[in-house]
Amino acid sequence: MPTSIPSFSDIKRAHQRISKYIIQTPVMTSKNIDEIAGCTIFFKCENFQKVGAFKMRGAANAIFSYRPEDRVNGFACHSSGNHGQAVALAAKLAEARAYVVMPKNSSQVKIDAVKGYNAEVIFCEPNDASRTQACEDVVNRTGAILIHPFNDYNIIAGQATAAKELIEEVDDLDAIITPVGGGGLASGTSLIAHHLDPNMEVFLGEPEAVDDAYQSLKAGKIIPNTSSETIADGLKTTIGEKNFAILKDHVKEVFTVSENEIVAAMKLIWERMKIVIEPSCAVPFAAILKNKKTFNGKRVGVILTGGNVDLTKLPF
Amino acid sequence: MPTSIPSFSDIKRAHQRISKYIIQTPVMTSKNIDEIAGCTIFFKCENFQKVGAFKMRGAANAIFSYRPEDRVNGFACHSSGNHGQAVALAAKLAEARAYVVMPKNSSQVKIDAVKGYNAEVIFCEPNDASRTQACEDVVNRTGAILIHPFNDYNIIAGQATAAKELIEEVDDLDAIITPVGGGGLASGTSLIAHHLDPNMEVFLGEPEAVDDAYQSLKAGKIIPNTSSETIADGLKTTIGEKNFAILKDHVKEVFTVSENEIVAAMKLIWERMKIVIEPSCAVPFAAILKNKKTFNGKRVGVILTGGNVDLTKLPF
Repeated sequence: MPTSIPSFSDIKRAHQRISKYIIQTPVMTSKNIDEIAGCTIFFKCENFQKVGAFKMRGAANAIFSYRPEDRVNGFACHSSGNHGQAVALAAKLAEARAYVVMPKNSSQVKIDAVKGYNAEVIFCEPNDASRTQACEDVVNRTGAILIHPFNDYNIIAGQATAAKELIEEVDDLDAIITPVGGGGLASGTSLIAHHLDPNMEVFLGEPEAVDDAYQSLKAGKIIPNTSSETIADGLKTTIGEKNFAILKDHVKEVFTVSENEIVAAMKLIWERMKIVIEPSCAVPFAAILKNKKTFNGKRVGVILTGGNVDLTKLPF
Repeated sequence: MPTSIPSFSDIKRAHQRISKYIIQTPVMTSKNIDEIAGCTIFFKCENFQKVGAFKMRGAANAIFSYRPEDRVNGFACHSSGNHGQAVALAAKLAEARAYVVMPKNSSQVKIDAVKGYNAEVIFCEPNDASRTQACEDVVNRTGAILIHPFNDYNIIAGQATAAKELIEEVDDLDAIITPVGGGGLASGTSLIAHHLDPNMEVFLGEPEAVDDAYQSLKAGKIIPNTSSETIADGLKTTIGEKNFAILKDHVKEVFTVSENEIVAAMKLIWERMKIVIEPSCAVPFAAILKNKKTFNGKRVGVILTGGNVDLTKLPF
């Protein structure tokens, strides 16, 4: 279990550990999209992953990193989204209890999904203090191990496996780009990209409205978000310390995009590729369309992070 | 070029002929969907096909069945939907002109798509008489060869290749089900299914509102639709004579489903499988959900026919 920045071996071990619990998702391409973007894009479809998001990789790695005798009190997490479902399912597969702290204004669909994996849902007020208190309470009551959604080396090593599969499947990628929220996927991706190819360019896409990664990498220290007003609801979080420490050594550039650019990119992928993706994972593609010169003629890997959207509340 | 019901050889030749012009689309599965349905479903994803629909297979086979010297005057068709795009693209690939007769109330998206493949669009009034006249006029004017959307053995042999790929990829299918409109896909699928496995059960799914196939197979003769009021806009047509002659010998049962059942099945596939499908291709899955006893425990192939929907006008 890595207690420092995951090595190549750590990530390979993570991949072996979780392989039977995850889907090796397909890589999709589209000539039509390539013509529009002016580069050749390889989309790693984590929207087809279990629980509908890459989060399953990190959660499975974190939970299965514990020996069976250490799993007896179960696992806890806080999440209003995909991490909660991922911990719930991974715990179920490990035959362990799961406790998921969720804001009480979470959508019924998400609550039902977590409960569907037999997890206990604990509601908190929709603010940081109440959430932290609820997590403490549940850990004290149950002895469960808290699984942080991103600021955790096991999570980072697990999320890295998506890019690992992509890079192993597609030859000669010039660049790879992921969205950045807390930074679990972004830091894992940047690590494995440079383990496998030190020359690969690593880019991040981020909504303008929550541009903490952009600001932080510019300032050389973490600058928290002051807003959470973005349609890309997976990217509202400020990056974690462990994540930032990795990103600052590996990321070439963070591109920010507007809300309109996110929605337009999302619609284009739905229309042309016939797949359902979340607003969050349209952010890197929006960044490519906005920065065509940077990507012109290159072979670019894009992690499509998830497909959990409320179909009755689409932005188009 | 088959002038009678396509033989196994005709369909194999069709497959060879079109293979470099089409995508060998993936077969997708979903444990979640299987649990809901009570059977094991293999979805052949023709929503990922070129032009976003299986129609590319038939159009490519029809057009490439003609020798290059017979393609000089181009090809014509009438279509308000996917067949028009398919003929336009297949003709372009064959370096031939295409003339597509479309009702003048067609959506701009569809008109633009056809024009995007360099086809000439000829507008008609949205009724049969005007459409027939427009087709006659364009054929007289240009000498183009008219490609019927379904009542044509080349089209039938081409559409059969989707099921051929599915059956060759997935072992031991007990049953296969497609939607039925004009019957091009349905008749091709039923032929190849029984060429490859005489014991395979062939089912069709049809909207209650346009149940001509159900009525016709019951009556032993073609009973035309009296309504076109269904969200499954690919299935409004009455089946063709050539198609009916095949279906009556091969189809075990036609299941009809309500509009609400179509929308619910469509939403379930979008939500659980994260793919974009047209209402028409939700019809077979709706039929499975409605007739669980028939499919219980079986291995069932489903052709997902297309993914061309207007994202701004979704029914949920």
